[in-house]
Amino acid sequence: MKIKSGQKLWLKAKKIIPGGSMLFSKRSEQFLPDFWPAYFKKAKGCEIWDLSGKKFIDVSLMGVGTNILGYGNTKVDNAVKKTIRLGNMSTLNCPEEVELAEVLLKLNKWSDSVRFTRSGGEANSVAIRIARAASNKEGVAICGYHGWHDWYLAAKLKNKNNLDTHLMQGLMSQGVPNQLKNTVFPFEYNNIKQLETLLKTKKNIGTIKLEVSRNFLPKNSFLKKVKSLSKKFKKILIFDECSSGFRECLGGLHLKYSVNPDIAVYGKALGNGYAINAIVGTKHVMKFCTKTFISSTFWTERIGPSAALATVREMKRQESWKYISIMGKYIKENWQKIANKYDFNIAIQGLDSMANFNFISSSNQIYKTFITQEMLKKGFLASNSIYVSTAHTEKIIIKYLRELNKIFEFIALNKRKKNHIKSLIMGKVCQTGFTRLN
Amino acid sequence: MKIKSGQKLWLKAKKIIPGGSMLFSKRSEQFLPDFWPAYFKKAKGCEIWDLSGKKFIDVSLMGVGTNILGYGNTKVDNAVKKTIRLGNMSTLNCPEEVELAEVLLKLNKWSDSVRFTRSGGEANSVAIRIARAASNKEGVAICGYHGWHDWYLAAKLKNKNNLDTHLMQGLMSQGVPNQLKNTVFPFEYNNIKQLETLLKTKKNIGTIKLEVSRNFLPKNSFLKKVKSLSKKFKKILIFDECSSGFRECLGGLHLKYSVNPDIAVYGKALGNGYAINAIVGTKHVMKFCTKTFISSTFWTERIGPSAALATVREMKRQESWKYISIMGKYIKENWQKIANKYDFNIAIQGLDSMANFNFISSSNQIYKTFITQEMLKKGFLASNSIYVSTAHTEKIIIKYLRELNKIFEFIALNKRKKNHIKSLIMGKVCQTGFTRLN
Repeated sequence: MKIKSGQKLWLKAKKIIPGGSMLFSKRSEQFLPDFWPAYFKKAKGCEIWDLSGKKFIDVSLMGVGTNILGYGNTKVDNAVKKTIRLGNMSTLNCPEEVELAEVLLKLNKWSDSVRFTRSGGEANSVAIRIARAASNKEGVAICGYHGWHDWYLAAKLKNKNNLDTHLMQGLMSQGVPNQLKNTVFPFEYNNIKQLETLLKTKKNIGTIKLEVSRNFLPKNSFLKKVKSLSKKFKKILIFDECSSGFRECLGGLHLKYSVNPDIAVYGKALGNGYAINAIVGTKHVMKFCTKTFISSTFWTERIGPSAALATVREMKRQESWKYISIMGKYIKENWQKIANKYDFNIAIQGLDSMANFNFISSSNQIYKTFITQEMLKKGFLASNSIYVSTAHTEKIIIKYLRELNKIFEFIALNKRKKNHIKSLIMGKVCQTGFTRLN
Repeated sequence: MKIKSGQKLWLKAKKIIPGGSMLFSKRSEQFLPDFWPAYFKKAKGCEIWDLSGKKFIDVSLMGVGTNILGYGNTKVDNAVKKTIRLGNMSTLNCPEEVELAEVLLKLNKWSDSVRFTRSGGEANSVAIRIARAASNKEGVAICGYHGWHDWYLAAKLKNKNNLDTHLMQGLMSQGVPNQLKNTVFPFEYNNIKQLETLLKTKKNIGTIKLEVSRNFLPKNSFLKKVKSLSKKFKKILIFDECSSGFRECLGGLHLKYSVNPDIAVYGKALGNGYAINAIVGTKHVMKFCTKTFISSTFWTERIGPSAALATVREMKRQESWKYISIMGKYIKENWQKIANKYDFNIAIQGLDSMANFNFISSSNQIYKTFITQEMLKKGFLASNSIYVSTAHTEKIIIKYLRELNKIFEFIALNKRKKNHIKSLIMGKVCQTGFTRLN
């Protein structure tokens, strides 16, 4: 396999864009160092054409969770094209944002009002600003990943390993003001005792913020207990639904578990690949929006809400969360079957529609890289995790599993030969990405 | 004039979107309370159609500075449409972001690398994170408006009037952690002594951040002196060019003044109405990007860089900064002529292509509201400021000035009758917006 134009451009990018990509999870090194296609010319359904025109089937991150309806969904794209015809921006506001607010309030019957942004990190910062204003306390108990902003990375100031189980081991946070030490306190998912102790001992905590569920399911009514604690201790409860939203129901995962927060944050899949985030909340909290300054020019552009309106409509029509969950469950079952067949011990985690597996082996990163390399040769963008979309037909998934089976078989046959699999990797072994254990 | 569908929707919006709009400057109350069209159906050139289909000529904010090439510029829109055809998002990166980085590096010959975001506030936060990481000091000396984020509003924690001359009087900042007190220190534009004193006395300052010029021109080589101080005291210099960029030359205003910062932040006009921001910097500072975590999913969408590439190309072809500056100067001169003719004392401020006037009178807000109301009746969206675009033809501006002249004449004839002009205002008097005195 030659180094393609994508890798040439990636090398150039790393010289003029620090980190190479604007998203950590889109770096080539996360997948297949030196050989990942890196850039796309075209994307449609679950197919991606790289710069040299070679077509791949994406059974990996699907835009890191943005495209539940597949790439270039016709109905969503038509809504966006109409927006462009009518004008994306003006001195006046676009009516679509009010319409989208109404749609989101209907989905979140517990809520009263909505604000929008155009990135998940910023949406989480808006939620935190509102919650801090409402609680009049700066402290936040957190569980999960909530973006790159100061308020969140401040958790690393006290103990640099503090976010290791939430974010990524060894991730650096230089430039976050040291003054923010002791403002953010991580707790483990499903560890209600730990949260209770935090709330009892850290008097400056005013807010509890968590991902509803990512790698693990809630155990022992964890979510209901979090809600109870938030009520008992009079804390504001924020659910970050950027990743989990729309994957198991039409809206936030909390709707499925019947546990309502004070604020829910949406993003990722909400616009099916177009930038749009929403902060949805109850009026007793959201009213603090007007006690503080939260304002940005590009939050008034029209593509975001237009895309979201079409996306929600289409997800509802297709009941996309059902399809992707069934398909995701099927994939998980087959990962396990294949692993059993070849006597591999693997750990499968995640919501059914955003699942991942890891080998319980010191060779995990090597096997993962090898799988990515070999799948690429077969025309698949594949690693050890998949965000399922409605574009992933049964036929595609069966073909993917068949190829994966062959690679597992090959690894099984050769794993006893010392360093053999590693020696077959053409470039470097992939880097560890997010290992979120929440 | 009946209350139109726009105001009905605005009333509804204020109930479900705290503040009504995502941008402070797009609230109806800033222009014409109860009667501003508020929402647009269509925008093209410098024309805007409101929800009832009535057409207005926008001689006001032009998307608050986003649309130098007018609304719905065909070349920019075609680039965006192509992007939609090819797919806006995928697991891989879009090559356009590398191309845009190259274009921006060519425009900013002093710079080495680039990062992108999708909102100005967030772009400024990225710049501050990098500068704090690079300087290893959390303190920032600021001059001007730099967004809604904690790092900036922290300036209000020490003295709640601290941003009055930079932002807006009385603006609230609840929810900004008190811990950030004494991290941000405002200084006045053209007051080099004040900056020098800050740098001498506040030992935690590592960064100087300012708008290159907004309402006033630099006096006594102010910019060069700021640069000298930054060198002398070894501080990182950031120019916020979100508003000033591309208005007087192809790129940042600092290029015109031949003063190079360590980091320049672009936005607003860069994508001609599509969301895209750039943080452009020298390698000795930008390399700290990889010492900290700055990452967001929607920063990888493809419309932003595609629109920016087409916008920069078209601005260059049209030499748009020349046209809008000449036209803006013409408008300023005519504002002054009209004021003189009717014996009004007005203050004209701002870059030629983003100019504003205010009556030196306690009736300023009343006159401003009346002007907006009467201009609206004549089919103009007009207040006391104009962001000039290439769509503002001489014919349109002459017509605008003719109508404005009549209103000035009417005010002049009636200003001695106590409360007469105020009594002719159908709704409330407009609220004070940003009164940036920097």
